[in-house]
Amino acid sequence: MLENRIRREDLKGKIMSAAEAALFIEDEMTIATSGFTPSGYPKAVPLALAKRAEDGEKIGITLITGASVGDELDGALTRAGVLKRRFPYQTNKDSRNAINNGTVMYQDMHLSHVSQYIDYGFFGKIDVAIIEALAITEDGGIIPTTSVGISPQAVKNADKVIIEINTSQPMALEGVHDIYMTEKPPHRKPIPIENSGDRIGTTYIPCDPEKIVAIVVTDKPDKVRPLGAIDENSKKISEHIIKFLENEVKMGRLPQNLLPLQSGVGSVANAVLGGLVDSKFENLTCYTEVIQDSMFDLIDAGKVTVASGTSFTPSEEGLVRLLDNMEHYAKHCVLRPMEISNNPEVARRLGVIAMNTAIEVDIYGHVNSTNIMGSRMMNGLGGSGDFTRNAYLSIYTSVSTAKNGDISSIVPMVSHVDHTEHDVMVVVTEQGIADLRGLAPTEKARKIIDNCAHPDYRPMLHAYLEKALEKKTKHQPHVIGEALSWHERFLETGSMKMK
Amino acid sequence: MLENRIRREDLKGKIMSAAEAALFIEDEMTIATSGFTPSGYPKAVPLALAKRAEDGEKIGITLITGASVGDELDGALTRAGVLKRRFPYQTNKDSRNAINNGTVMYQDMHLSHVSQYIDYGFFGKIDVAIIEALAITEDGGIIPTTSVGISPQAVKNADKVIIEINTSQPMALEGVHDIYMTEKPPHRKPIPIENSGDRIGTTYIPCDPEKIVAIVVTDKPDKVRPLGAIDENSKKISEHIIKFLENEVKMGRLPQNLLPLQSGVGSVANAVLGGLVDSKFENLTCYTEVIQDSMFDLIDAGKVTVASGTSFTPSEEGLVRLLDNMEHYAKHCVLRPMEISNNPEVARRLGVIAMNTAIEVDIYGHVNSTNIMGSRMMNGLGGSGDFTRNAYLSIYTSVSTAKNGDISSIVPMVSHVDHTEHDVMVVVTEQGIADLRGLAPTEKARKIIDNCAHPDYRPMLHAYLEKALEKKTKHQPHVIGEALSWHERFLETGSMKMK
Ligand SMILES: CC(C)(COP(=O)(O)OP(=O)(O)OC[C@H]1O[C@@H](n2cnc3c(N)ncnc32)[C@H](O)[C@@H]1OP(=O)(O)O)[C@@H](O)C(=O)NCCC(=O)NCCS
Ligand SMILES: CC(C)(COP(=O)(O)OP(=O)(O)OC[C@H]1O[C@@H](n2cnc3c(N)ncnc32)[C@H](O)[C@@H]1OP(=O)(O)O)[C@@H](O)C(=O)NCCC(=O)NCCS
Repeated sequence: MLENRIRREDLKGKIMSAAEAALFIEDEMTIATSGFTPSGYPKAVPLALAKRAEDGEKIGITLITGASVGDELDGALTRAGVLKRRFPYQTNKDSRNAINNGTVMYQDMHLSHVSQYIDYGFFGKIDVAIIEALAITEDGGIIPTTSVGISPQAVKNADKVIIEINTSQPMALEGVHDIYMTEKPPHRKPIPIENSGDRIGTTYIPCDPEKIVAIVVTDKPDKVRPLGAIDENSKKISEHIIKFLENEVKMGRLPQNLLPLQSGVGSVANAVLGGLVDSKFENLTCYTEVIQDSMFDLIDAGKVTVASGTSFTPSEEGLVRLLDNMEHYAKHCVLRPMEISNNPEVARRLGVIAMNTAIEVDIYGHVNSTNIMGSRMMNGLGGSGDFTRNAYLSIYTSVSTAKNGDISSIVPMVSHVDHTEHDVMVVVTEQGIADLRGLAPTEKARKIIDNCAHPDYRPMLHAYLEKALEKKTKHQPHVIGEALSWHERFLETGSMKMK
Repeated sequence: MLENRIRREDLKGKIMSAAEAALFIEDEMTIATSGFTPSGYPKAVPLALAKRAEDGEKIGITLITGASVGDELDGALTRAGVLKRRFPYQTNKDSRNAINNGTVMYQDMHLSHVSQYIDYGFFGKIDVAIIEALAITEDGGIIPTTSVGISPQAVKNADKVIIEINTSQPMALEGVHDIYMTEKPPHRKPIPIENSGDRIGTTYIPCDPEKIVAIVVTDKPDKVRPLGAIDENSKKISEHIIKFLENEVKMGRLPQNLLPLQSGVGSVANAVLGGLVDSKFENLTCYTEVIQDSMFDLIDAGKVTVASGTSFTPSEEGLVRLLDNMEHYAKHCVLRPMEISNNPEVARRLGVIAMNTAIEVDIYGHVNSTNIMGSRMMNGLGGSGDFTRNAYLSIYTSVSTAKNGDISSIVPMVSHVDHTEHDVMVVVTEQGIADLRGLAPTEKARKIIDNCAHPDYRPMLHAYLEKALEKKTKHQPHVIGEALSWHERFLETGSMKMK
């Protein structure tokens, strides 16, 4: 069976146990791995590494991945105290807690910056790359599994490469990947993608076989995350967006089949795409990061012709469906390196419609995607900025309240800014939609309050705006001493509402 | 003399006075004009338009330009009450005041968004384009003057085009422009620029002669802005940057001749580039927006081989020098449409070193470029975000204090965010430099405070950080009730210092 998985005789000698492979990792090393959302990340070697620390060895590392990875990597290494520094995104409960209590140093980065940071040497030397693979080709090429992420640049720049051949990943994945790598400036060329589905590279990651120091065979499946059921609020958000897009088509500002869709992670994002199944739109394409469950529905309904991403990010049911029908979905999907899936050049050229989720939005249209109450890291901004900033249309969705109504997601001033007023064109909640294009800040404020805020908070928001407008400067008026008082009140009383 | 300026007989019948031409402009119209920084903007027609309003006519317009324009346009129209809505950037005293007292609705936009907003129809219909021209070619092509800005898209999308032939602009400018236009998605192609100096278009803006409704001949020179003398602080900032760049070369993270430089507007930015004249760097190139005085010094010193921008932005002395030696400078300069000079695709491909000026920076590396004390619009963000976000290296400069030391430019939390922690790699003040790459927020904070803050404010900043670190969440710790208290104190007492 391994014949097809390791297609070079000389590499078979490199097969070893995860524990042996993990010995290539030493204290203070920088490790770059495959994995994007809990898909296609290495599992056996990280667990073996965690074991060494649990057994008393002093070992701390810097970890760079594509995006979030599964518990065997982020979780296990955090609990074992191995994780010291982390880039660029995570969603693991234990690593999140370690970041928020200050024991893991975390830099939340635009995903489009990560691969080139590796190439540029901005992270320093990459000691070891650990890559989950479907197979190794005759030339030593590495065929990725359910995600690509930073693997091409990790392999290119690392001193040593460890490969985890995962036999739980079906061979039907072969051919779905399209690996194209950019040069460093001043030698960089245009990326020749003009349509979401264009294939411009190879189906494997080139790798000098000399660099491969270990091959570990495993069959641990991706530990995917559950997706919340599509609730009423998400449905309403989806409806507002579809109505808005229909009107853009009517006004001649969008083609009949729209432009390539990008949709963020999470339940709301999944629901928004899901809503398109019953819409009248046809021949849609997607140029996005993550291919979630609703994309399979759209493909099955014949609505989406091609979806480009850097990762399959299914739920548990979605994973079964994907793996069982891989040949079918592979015809409609391309998995690219994150350097390409999130590239500003391509996003702007194709004119993506970017739909991402906010934690909170302020009356002037600034968006917080990451830090709850200004300080508590949730996940990270992921690719939201890559797409928002370069989109044809940038849309932010949020449910208008959180924590049983004690938090308003529309606030006078966001407590942390990930996306500025200059980048956010449309805000949507279950209450309604605010199209901010062409408006001045005070006009944006009225529209966001009236269309998007929860009715419970509208009078308070209007009162803030009116009080701010009494001040001398009325461009983006604030009562600076009260701008963050809603957050302060929540932290003190447990509610943004006034007693 | 006009023979060479209007090279088609049939257009000569369109010559008329500015007053007559201005009659094509009606109440509630949207007008798009040439002009970028006070260079190459129309002068005669706007003054004639202002006159109509001063004479009692009710007329209000929306004005879209490349960037800031001279007083004959922004100033005169504001004073006459003609300016109602303004995009995307301005620096005029009167228009700034009108924006801040709420009489002009202003949306501060990324410059890279403006031309495509016009193409996409996001501003609605463009009724009239007013373009300052050097000459009109045999085909009706319009040769721009000292800037290009949004002129190509304004001409393409406007119902009517008014041309101001400016005879004070030397014919030697012909050939310096390179006009290339992008298609709208889904038909957009890669922009074929691989080096700062690549020429990919025509030397004129294509225009259907039928659209030209009026030609006005004028000789009013550009009303350029004075440049502050290079002071001690700017010199120190420049020295810190040069030392930093030298080290990047030494570490192998930059080529010997660096990568294309982008430098913002204003005195500090001018000084930073000026400092390179005496550095040991050679064969430099620039891919930027504005070509300021110090660029002429760099060209004369043989340090810069080619400078690409969308506008010449000289001081008064610089303007004389430029116009007197146009043939010399034209050999080393290319003026492009703002859609190309500020394009994220090109900025990222070339790997620009982006150097822009901040109003304030916070301890976590967020930058405010626009709104003083969170509310008072200064100029706008211009192209700073276009370059920062897509740069190989993004650098922000600021003097560590303002208003005689009563304001610290390093604060616990900026009162407005234009550039996020995810985009800002290096912060520089006269005190020193903080390289933020790879650091977590709390590490960034210590480095910015110790290296960049003024010594008077360092203890206060450290005290804030330590107090914030006592809170539960330590990723990007804030004392939310005090985060903006420095600004509040300044507004109340006239100083950020505690009494
Ligand atoms: C913003 C984001 C966290 C929302 O995720 P989601 O699953 O759609 O949203 P939920 O409504 O379940 O909210 C997630 C949590 O944030 C909390 N929350 C939501 N809004 C909040 C607010 N305004 N203030 C405080 N907490 C808030 C929710 O209560 C929930 O908390 P819990 O986990 O303790 O129950 C998520 O989309 C994200 O991480 N985005 C950034 C990355 C990104 O956009 N990537 C896109 C490119 S792939
Ligand atoms: C930020 C910017 C205003 C600085 O301009 P500059 O000429 O280098 O800076 P100065 O030190 O002269 O400061 C300008 C004013 O801001 C004030 N200022 C500076 N820092 C301040 C602070 N932290 N708080 C309040 N005011 C401040 C100065 O006192 C001065 O005020 P004054 O005009 O009333 O005297 C200018 O660079 C800008 O508009 N940038 C945004 C656009 C941009 O970056 N474009 C680049 C791409 S082209």
